Amino acid sequence: MTTTSYEPGELYPTTRLAAVREATARSGLGALLLTPGPDLRYVTGYEAMPLERLTCLVVPAAGEPFLMVPRLELPAAEHSPAARLGVEFTAWDETDDPYAQVAHRLGAVGRVGLADRMWALQSLRFRDAMPGAEQVLAGSVLRELRMRKSPAEAAALAEAGAAIDAVHALVPGLLKAGRTEREVGKDIAEAIVAAGHARVDFVIVGSGPNGASPHHELSDRVIQAGEPVVVDIGGTMPSGYCSDSTRVYCVGEPPADFVRYYEVLQQAQEAACAHVRPGVTCESVDAAAREVIAEAGYGELFIHRTGHGIGLETHEEPYIVSGNAEPMAPGFAFSVEPGIYQPGRHGARIEDIVICGETGGERVNHTTRDLVVV
Amino acid sequence: MTTTSYEPGELYPTTRLAAVREATARSGLGALLLTPGPDLRYVTGYEAMPLERLTCLVVPAAGEPFLMVPRLELPAAEHSPAARLGVEFTAWDETDDPYAQVAHRLGAVGRVGLADRMWALQSLRFRDAMPGAEQVLAGSVLRELRMRKSPAEAAALAEAGAAIDAVHALVPGLLKAGRTEREVGKDIAEAIVAAGHARVDFVIVGSGPNGASPHHELSDRVIQAGEPVVVDIGGTMPSGYCSDSTRVYCVGEPPADFVRYYEVLQQAQEAACAHVRPGVTCESVDAAAREVIAEAGYGELFIHRTGHGIGLETHEEPYIVSGNAEPMAPGFAFSVEPGIYQPGRHGARIEDIVICGETGGERVNHTTRDLVVV
Repeated sequence: MTTTSYEPGELYPTTRLAAVREATARSGLGALLLTPGPDLRYVTGYEAMPLERLTCLVVPAAGEPFLMVPRLELPAAEHSPAARLGVEFTAWDETDDPYAQVAHRLGAVGRVGLADRMWALQSLRFRDAMPGAEQVLAGSVLRELRMRKSPAEAAALAEAGAAIDAVHALVPGLLKAGRTEREVGKDIAEAIVAAGHARVDFVIVGSGPNGASPHHELSDRVIQAGEPVVVDIGGTMPSGYCSDSTRVYCVGEPPADFVRYYEVLQQAQEAACAHVRPGVTCESVDAAAREVIAEAGYGELFIHRTGHGIGLETHEEPYIVSGNAEPMAPGFAFSVEPGIYQPGRHGARIEDIVICGETGGERVNHTTRDLVVV
Repeated sequence: MTTTSYEPGELYPTTRLAAVREATARSGLGALLLTPGPDLRYVTGYEAMPLERLTCLVVPAAGEPFLMVPRLELPAAEHSPAARLGVEFTAWDETDDPYAQVAHRLGAVGRVGLADRMWALQSLRFRDAMPGAEQVLAGSVLRELRMRKSPAEAAALAEAGAAIDAVHALVPGLLKAGRTEREVGKDIAEAIVAAGHARVDFVIVGSGPNGASPHHELSDRVIQAGEPVVVDIGGTMPSGYCSDSTRVYCVGEPPADFVRYYEVLQQAQEAACAHVRPGVTCESVDAAAREVIAEAGYGELFIHRTGHGIGLETHEEPYIVSGNAEPMAPGFAFSVEPGIYQPGRHGARIEDIVICGETGGERVNHTTRDLVVV
C-alpha cells in the first residue's frame, strides 16, 4: 500500500464537495439529489441510515448546496462529518412535505441526478414534485471521482483487508466435518464484527456441491470429510469501506480432480493480479484470468466476471468484465476473483482486493492462496 | 403471543403469490417488479442480496409470474424458498440486457409497481426500457397485505423480541463509567449476533447529552458516573424479521429531574400500549402517549412520532403518527416508543414492539421498563 494509515479528515475531505459541484455543472445537470447511501457518504462523510424519512443533500449546479434532514436527525447530522462542510441544514417536521420544499428551492431544472441507490419510495416522490426534471443517475457525475481512490481511501481498504484476513486466519479452527455451514457461518459472522467491522455484509460457506454455486450463502448442510469449502466473506468497517475475500479450505484430503483445477485457478488469479497496471483495460484483466482457465480446459466452468470495484460499496464501478474497455488508472480498487465450478460436486474461487498503483496492482489481502487443508 | 413458534413454510406461504396477483389486478396495475428487498422476500421468502445485477420477480396482473435472475444467482435462487412457488426462473447472462427482456415479455402495460426499495440504478433502467409504463410503488398493492402479520409472522417477531431482550439483559454488565459509547456499542453489536440475529441493524448508545438526540448512534464520548444512557438496538433474524427495543440505564444515581420525567415517560408508554386494540386509529395511539407527556408539562420535549411498523423492515407501515387515521387491525405490528429529550443534558425513550391482537396489544419485549441503575 502507498499508505498504511489515514487521518479521519483525509478520508472524507471537505474539498470534495466543491469538486462534485464542478462535475455536476460540467455534466449539464441542474442538481444532484443524494439520499443516504454510498453517494452521500462519499461526498459528506455522513453515514445516515437509509430510512423512509427523507434525508437528502441537494447539490445545485448553480447555487448553494443544502442538506434536507428530518428534525429528528438534525442533532445526528450536526455531529456528523457533514457539519464540517459549512452547508445549510434544513430541518423538516413530521407533517411537512420535504419533496415539495426541495422542488421549490431548486426551481426549474432540466435534469437531476439521483443517488444510485435512492429508493423508489423517494425517487417517485421527487418525480411527482419536480415533473419537469428528467431523472438520471448521480453516478454519471460521481463515478469518475469514486473510482479513483485517494491514498486515504486506499489505506481504509487496506485496513478492511487486514480485518477480513484476521477472520480467514480463524476459519481453519471453525471448519470441522460434522458441523453445518450455518454453524460455521454464525461463528464467522461474530468474528467479522470482533475483527473491527461495523457490520457483516455477507458470509458464504459453500461446502462440497454448494461450493459450485458462486453466490450460495449458508445452509444446514453438514460438512463432510474430504470436502472443499469455499469461504467468501466481507463486512463494512467503521470508515465506511468494505472488505471482501475468498479462500478455499478442505476438510481432510481433497479429491484429486479438485486439486488439479485448484492449481489452474491459483495461476489464473495470479496472472490477473500481475496484469494490473495503469492503462490496461478492465476487460483485459478479466481476460488474463480467463485465458489461463480456458487453456487448461475449464473455460466453461468459469461462469462469472473476474471482479467488481469496491470502496464504500462491496460492488461498484469498475467492473472487471468482458466489454468494459475502461482503462485502469491509479486508485482503481477491485476484486480479482476467478472461480471454477463443477456442478453437483465442488467449486473454488480465490479472491483478493487489488488497488491499481502507479506501476502495478497491490493486493490488500495477504492470507495464503494455497488450498488450506484442515 | 398467539403462537410461540412457527414452521418455516408458514412464514412465507406459497399461497401468498396468488393473493398478490389478485391484489395487483384489483389495483389496475399491469405488473409488479420486485427487486431484492423486503417486498420480494415477503412474496417469495427469497432473501436475495440487493446487487447491481438485476434480480426481479415480475408479477403480471394477467399472465404467469417469472423471476429474472443473473445466471450466477440461479443456483441460489433454485435453492431458495422462491423455488417452491413453481414460477419460471429466467437466467440472464453477463452481457444480456435483462431490462429489455422484461419489457419485451410484459408487452404494453399502463402502470407498473416498483418495489419500494428499488434502487434508482434499476428504476431508471426500467423507465427507459418501458417508456409507456407509469411507475408507481408496489407498496400501494402490498401494504394491506404486509401490515397484517400472520400468526407465523407474529411468532417470528416474538422470536426477534426475545433475542434483543437477551442483549438488553447483558447491557448492565457492559456499561461502566470510563468506557466510551463506541466500546460499549461494539460489545453490544457482537452480542446481537451471538443472540441469534443474522445481522446488526443499528446500535444507539446515547450517554448524557447524547441521549437527547433520538437517532444519535455511537461516539467516542466517555460515559460519566451519574449519567443516564439510552440504548436503542436492533437486528434482523435469519427469518427476515426485525427486532428493535430501547431501554434506559443509569451509571450510578440518576439526576433528580431525570427521575421525574422518566416516570412520566413510563406512564406514557404504558398508556399507549394499553390503548392498542382493533379499530382505534394509529394516530390515537400516538395521542395516548403524547397526552400523558403533555399533561406533565414535557410536551415540547417529545419531538418525534410514537412509533413505526416493523416486520421485514425495521421501519414500515403503519406509522404511529398524528395524521394517520388508519384503523388498527389484528396483526398490525409496530413500535411504541415515546421519548423525552432535555437538549444538552440527557434524554430517555422506552420502546417495545407491540402486536395488535383480537382484543388488545401484546408486547414482544419483556425486559424491565424501569430505569436500570448499574
